[in-house]
Amino acid sequence: MSRARTEDDVLERIERARRRKPRVREERITAAHGAGGKATQTLIEAVFVEAFRNALLEPLGDAADLVLDGTRLAMTTDSYVVSPLFFPGGNIGDLAVNGTVNDLAVAGAIPAYLSCGFILEEGFPIEDLRRIVASMRECAEAVGVALVTGDTKVVGRGSGDGCYVNTTGIGLLPTDRALGIHTARPGDAIVVSGPVGEHGVTVMLARGELELEADLVSDTAPLADLCARLLAVPGVRAMRDATRGGVATVLNEIARAADVSVVVNEDAVPVRDEVRGACELLGIDPLYVACEGRFVAVVDGAYADEALAALQGHPQGAEAAVIGRVGPDPAGTVLLNTAFGGTRIADLLVGDPLPRIC
Amino acid sequence: MSRARTEDDVLERIERARRRKPRVREERITAAHGAGGKATQTLIEAVFVEAFRNALLEPLGDAADLVLDGTRLAMTTDSYVVSPLFFPGGNIGDLAVNGTVNDLAVAGAIPAYLSCGFILEEGFPIEDLRRIVASMRECAEAVGVALVTGDTKVVGRGSGDGCYVNTTGIGLLPTDRALGIHTARPGDAIVVSGPVGEHGVTVMLARGELELEADLVSDTAPLADLCARLLAVPGVRAMRDATRGGVATVLNEIARAADVSVVVNEDAVPVRDEVRGACELLGIDPLYVACEGRFVAVVDGAYADEALAALQGHPQGAEAAVIGRVGPDPAGTVLLNTAFGGTRIADLLVGDPLPRIC
Repeated sequence: MSRARTEDDVLERIERARRRKPRVREERITAAHGAGGKATQTLIEAVFVEAFRNALLEPLGDAADLVLDGTRLAMTTDSYVVSPLFFPGGNIGDLAVNGTVNDLAVAGAIPAYLSCGFILEEGFPIEDLRRIVASMRECAEAVGVALVTGDTKVVGRGSGDGCYVNTTGIGLLPTDRALGIHTARPGDAIVVSGPVGEHGVTVMLARGELELEADLVSDTAPLADLCARLLAVPGVRAMRDATRGGVATVLNEIARAADVSVVVNEDAVPVRDEVRGACELLGIDPLYVACEGRFVAVVDGAYADEALAALQGHPQGAEAAVIGRVGPDPAGTVLLNTAFGGTRIADLLVGDPLPRIC
Repeated sequence: MSRARTEDDVLERIERARRRKPRVREERITAAHGAGGKATQTLIEAVFVEAFRNALLEPLGDAADLVLDGTRLAMTTDSYVVSPLFFPGGNIGDLAVNGTVNDLAVAGAIPAYLSCGFILEEGFPIEDLRRIVASMRECAEAVGVALVTGDTKVVGRGSGDGCYVNTTGIGLLPTDRALGIHTARPGDAIVVSGPVGEHGVTVMLARGELELEADLVSDTAPLADLCARLLAVPGVRAMRDATRGGVATVLNEIARAADVSVVVNEDAVPVRDEVRGACELLGIDPLYVACEGRFVAVVDGAYADEALAALQGHPQGAEAAVIGRVGPDPAGTVLLNTAFGGTRIADLLVGDPLPRIC
């Protein structure tokens, strides 16, 4: 079966999606609208994209691909509302810098500058703010970006959960590279850069709502270096960090954007025993749990080994794995070959099993 | 008295300020830390600048002045937490677009791209979100900027006050122009672009906590066009929009940054009767009340008339006025010649008389 993926194809698919007109059926915001799954996508498409409609926003990549006076740059924004603010392996400050740096890095950009906006609750301890800010500086220094502009607002006691942080980042995009999940095609390999789900499970356990302890820390980390290393391999078509909604959400985004199927072998997905155990107790699938230092890459099948070697040669990618392949049918669908020899559809997340994870 | 304002001078003053080491004496965040006055400045200097220390952040202008691959650009961020979300003349969406566009415009940049990050409270009506988003689109269209990337988070019921919005903007900076309030010098004129305090008083009245009605609407407006018109006049040294903390805060920032005095004639400050009346009842000074569509400019005295004419020739600047002059002494101080013939110091705001105004 041959599928020419020309520009016309892409435009036609955008047109088709437009005609489909997603509709928000709820009258009020629910936790699911923030979970990164089905409800989030519908909200984004029906409310934000519908209103702001422009060619730069509509690809809905990790970062917008812009030109300013001849310079090609990427821009991305993220607000962080994680609860608790401090957890094993990091805090909201690490997340805020690494998360935005990673959105630039997976878009193929070289992260350069960050802004940060704080919303602080009256009564929030200044000492906690200092710890958060110190983490932000360390993360920024580690990756070579500068925090160049900021804003601070204070909201009343009882609002704001202590501290919310927004970071927005810009970075330089090489002009000779066009990455994008819509370019995935049958035969491509799906690679994950490391074990999945550690961040989400760590945060969940840090809430102390479960009678469960595990020797786990968040995977929060800057991925710029690892992404640059992978990009040196030809045949890399796209990267996307697996945050809210986890790896399964990214795979669904790939399947929909490129109108292909993604077939994943459950056995091949690296998951630490502690994560697997906690997920079983929580009744959730690790494939849907947020990471803050892992990404999924789509690589031309002919370069899969080379890509894997490039990742594994870096400390952050030591446990990288090819977890599946892109196929033609059923288009728009993620199929999971389970450990028990069956096959099931891994659809977009419905509801929000792990709220306020980032 | 002659004061050479060389680069060395500026660097020396930065060094002096560093040695002064501002310290936050409180252990917890208070409403005053969000008011734009003394507490805000101390928090920014002692916590954020201290940690993030870099030459791009330290000027603390309305926007950072950056270079990316040879392109000079401005970047600015603002979170909006106004209460109520809807008020006469606008809503949080207008503020979020106009406010960030204005920070770029007063920095002399041509606004180009905005990101927006929403933090939504569970239970927030989708219809209200649509209204906010529609306002954002209208404001963005009016000023010719594109909303190119976004993020949505959902927080639990009781947190988040319905909706917080962060917008971050980038714009192109002409390479031949160096604006900055540190360049103010004795003899310069202080110009305000229109009547002050309408936004703050409007929001305050919209809360309905006062037995007071006034025929007022917010002054929220994009200033890019008006700023560009003023910049065509030679001798314009700096512009700054008078948001949190109002005109008096901007004047104090000028006096400190340039180590000069600013002498203002109270009679010359344009204030609508409704604003004056409400302020008298509230026991506050209109000079400290937030505007969202007014700026203060520092202009070489020789070009004051030309600058005023340029502003007054534009509908948004019809009521622009020269309100004072820059003098040499006492350096770092704003003096107010009152309507009753006296003179008093108009210091930075202490406390927060009008919380959550933007």
